[in-house]
Amino acid sequence: MSRIAVFPGSFDPFTNGHYDVVQRGLKIFDEVIIGLGINPNKTRYFDSKLMEEKIVEAFKGNSKVSVKTYSGLTAEFARENQAKYILRGLRNTTDFEYENTISQINRDLFEGLETVFLITSPEYAAVSSSVIREVHKFGKSPDKYLPYKL
Amino acid sequence: MSRIAVFPGSFDPFTNGHYDVVQRGLKIFDEVIIGLGINPNKTRYFDSKLMEEKIVEAFKGNSKVSVKTYSGLTAEFARENQAKYILRGLRNTTDFEYENTISQINRDLFEGLETVFLITSPEYAAVSSSVIREVHKFGKSPDKYLPYKL
Amino acid sequence: MSRIAVFPGSFDPFTNGHYDVVQRGLKIFDEVIIGLGINPNKTRYFDSKLMEEKIVEAFKGNSKVSVKTYSGLTAEFARENQAKYILRGLRNTTDFEYENTISQINRDLFEGLETVFLITSPEYAAVSSSVIREVHKFGKSPDKYLPYKL
Amino acid sequence: MSRIAVFPGSFDPFTNGHYDVVQRGLKIFDEVIIGLGINPNKTRYFDSKLMEEKIVEAFKGNSKVSVKTYSGLTAEFARENQAKYILRGLRNTTDFEYENTISQINRDLFEGLETVFLITSPEYAAVSSSVIREVHKFGKSPDKYLPYKL
Amino acid sequence: MSRIAVFPGSFDPFTNGHYDVVQRGLKIFDEVIIGLGINPNKTRYFDSKLMEEKIVEAFKGNSKVSVKTYSGLTAEFARENQAKYILRGLRNTTDFEYENTISQINRDLFEGLETVFLITSPEYAAVSSSVIREVHKFGKSPDKYLPYKL
Amino acid sequence: MSRIAVFPGSFDPFTNGHYDVVQRGLKIFDEVIIGLGINPNKTRYFDSKLMEEKIVEAFKGNSKVSVKTYSGLTAEFARENQAKYILRGLRNTTDFEYENTISQINRDLFEGLETVFLITSPEYAAVSSSVIREVHKFGKSPDKYLPYKL
Repeated sequence: MSRIAVFPGSFDPFTNGHYDVVQRGLKIFDEVIIGLGINPNKTRYFDSKLMEEKIVEAFKGNSKVSVKTYSGLTAEFARENQAKYILRGLRNTTDFEYENTISQINRDLFEGLETVFLITSPEYAAVSSSVIREVHKFGKSPDKYLPYKL
Repeated sequence: MSRIAVFPGSFDPFTNGHYDVVQRGLKIFDEVIIGLGINPNKTRYFDSKLMEEKIVEAFKGNSKVSVKTYSGLTAEFARENQAKYILRGLRNTTDFEYENTISQINRDLFEGLETVFLITSPEYAAVSSSVIREVHKFGKSPDKYLPYKL
Repeated sequence: MSRIAVFPGSFDPFTNGHYDVVQRGLKIFDEVIIGLGINPNKTRYFDSKLMEEKIVEAFKGNSKVSVKTYSGLTAEFARENQAKYILRGLRNTTDFEYENTISQINRDLFEGLETVFLITSPEYAAVSSSVIREVHKFGKSPDKYLPYKL
Repeated sequence: MSRIAVFPGSFDPFTNGHYDVVQRGLKIFDEVIIGLGINPNKTRYFDSKLMEEKIVEAFKGNSKVSVKTYSGLTAEFARENQAKYILRGLRNTTDFEYENTISQINRDLFEGLETVFLITSPEYAAVSSSVIREVHKFGKSPDKYLPYKL
Repeated sequence: MSRIAVFPGSFDPFTNGHYDVVQRGLKIFDEVIIGLGINPNKTRYFDSKLMEEKIVEAFKGNSKVSVKTYSGLTAEFARENQAKYILRGLRNTTDFEYENTISQINRDLFEGLETVFLITSPEYAAVSSSVIREVHKFGKSPDKYLPYKL
Repeated sequence: MSRIAVFPGSFDPFTNGHYDVVQRGLKIFDEVIIGLGINPNKTRYFDSKLMEEKIVEAFKGNSKVSVKTYSGLTAEFARENQAKYILRGLRNTTDFEYENTISQINRDLFEGLETVFLITSPEYAAVSSSVIREVHKFGKSPDKYLPYKL
């Protein structure tokens, strides 16, 4: 039986740190579905359609990775995609405390849905989407933090 | 002399974790006044009137617990209610850093107002109001995390 | 009924930070029993007999505070002294993570034994017994960090 | 190809928290080898032979779990057992900071050796081997924290 | 060559904690330029013009300290002012995790731009701008937390 | 006037992470004195004489860096060397909580002795002396983590 994991996030934008977690996740799972979460109440900086294309481009040629947008509960998205696992990266203790809450609830609501964590590689741990938006907004290129060209 | 504590929060919604802290707080204090804080600049998800009713329902028959709404400084609310203590639960290090700041100021501004902490029971530590709102918004029942039925 | 709390520690030495927590604890409890824990497998720097005397001296005239030495489980010590509460100070997140573990077990082993936390006042939060031992060992006086003279 | 993970630790003793991580790890891996690490410079409280027997007993009938003792580097132990993964549980931020260091080095020294983390279930997060030793040393039974009888 | 540092922040308001970091920073740097960052998308509580005046007032007579407003990247602001250093205070672990991200990016984007940290003095570590706004909003004077009169 | 900083540690061994902090510290200070602290009660893994030689070798040709061994208080060592600054690296929140305590005491005991922090570069943040000892003890070369050959 195939091991399918979803890798959820708002990916505004998708960074080298995210890319690293997906690549390493492929050593554990047979398939990783990147779930680009759309929150209607939150304004994005990078358009979700554009981002979806960029992620597709970043993983071109890798049939084990796909991208889908979703709105709603991540756990629901996992179930709809027959995924028994949520893949997440941990950069620091703030991430840990946040994920601790979310993952327990997900396991609880959807029996057995396991969140599997990788610690972000040190060279990417300082890269956050919010900082990249800041850099981009003020006219600097953030390309060195991204697995594609903007 | 009676030991009165206030237990302040936005309670959007009031959870089993909050309920646990109040129940355990009653072993320390003679009376616990739940202070449902109203912030005019912040939109609630659950109506404050409804939430007040639900909290009353959860503690029905327990004369040592009451609920009041307030807007303004928590320390002021404590003083108006002759409370010398603020009761708070700590779930994790993020909570700790936040409470550290608030409690020092409260003690400073209102001489001797003490904030007394209990560590949230492990089975409730992962329950956060924001996750429950999320669950509810997408049509799942969060009743198992609440000391009343929605 | 009298609210009795134990305030356990190795107190090697007892500091102004400890003193502050006991004094503030007296606003919550009717009686605080300072429990100087003796661990036969661990070498102390300050003699436990001396430390006991110094703590007695620091609280002289305050009939609500007493000092006892004990070896064994803290929870057992609490029970032997009819204490339903353990009083503890929290200085930082490292303390929090440690106490989180201990307090859950104590509550679990001795039904209803509650650990009540105060956050150490900022001016004392940087004072640790280990740093004071260091200072003393190299011939500097640590008296300004202690509620008694060495 | 079979996905083999090692689950290393000193297991002094092996707790319900460890048991939980192994059971959940089996949803991800085809085989989990529990590695009981022997450190000649550190005195154990529970005999390693006894502990090995107890772990075997806890997983009796489960052919996907085995136990081995080892001394040396964990990464070396993983390699000798054809394991491409190290499985670890995270209870809190202190664990996270520790594992962050170790896992990066392991990945670095043994190219591609991935450490996969699960967050310990909340009901077990407060259980630590050191607290259990304390409880046992003073004559209380820690059986409720263990997946076997001592 | 003169060592110039910028001390950036939104300073809404500038507190005794900020003042303390600048004063101590002057022992390290020859000149500290306080950069009051203006974010057009974020509503301030205290007017930026007023705040600039108050900061000037607080450092009156000290020719090594100046104040400038800026919008844009902090690193850009540093470069425009020939500053090779960013000065920042750390109050707690939440601050640390945040600064960890920002400082790595700044060093990366502007080769060699170093962020130099001082740990906030304990008596000021609990003072946060957001708590002061709260206090002020409800009609209490926050003057004791500020190096000037409002 | 010359800005002199001490960079204290047990350096068992001195790592690339330490080297990085010293190099970056030289942008702030005119001179950095590496203080290899000798604790008579603690057994070293790497001989202190050897380590001193290796550090000298690592900074050969750089007249702004020197190495000295010392036992006693770090603050005393700073004073003896006319250093007004202690330079320290921060890798994570555990480091932060530890340094928070130490630096306040140092500033307190030796009026005005400032501890200046740099956040360790991400590529070195996972390198700890204790892990390197482990790696070396089991016969692996830790040279890639060191600014010299062992």
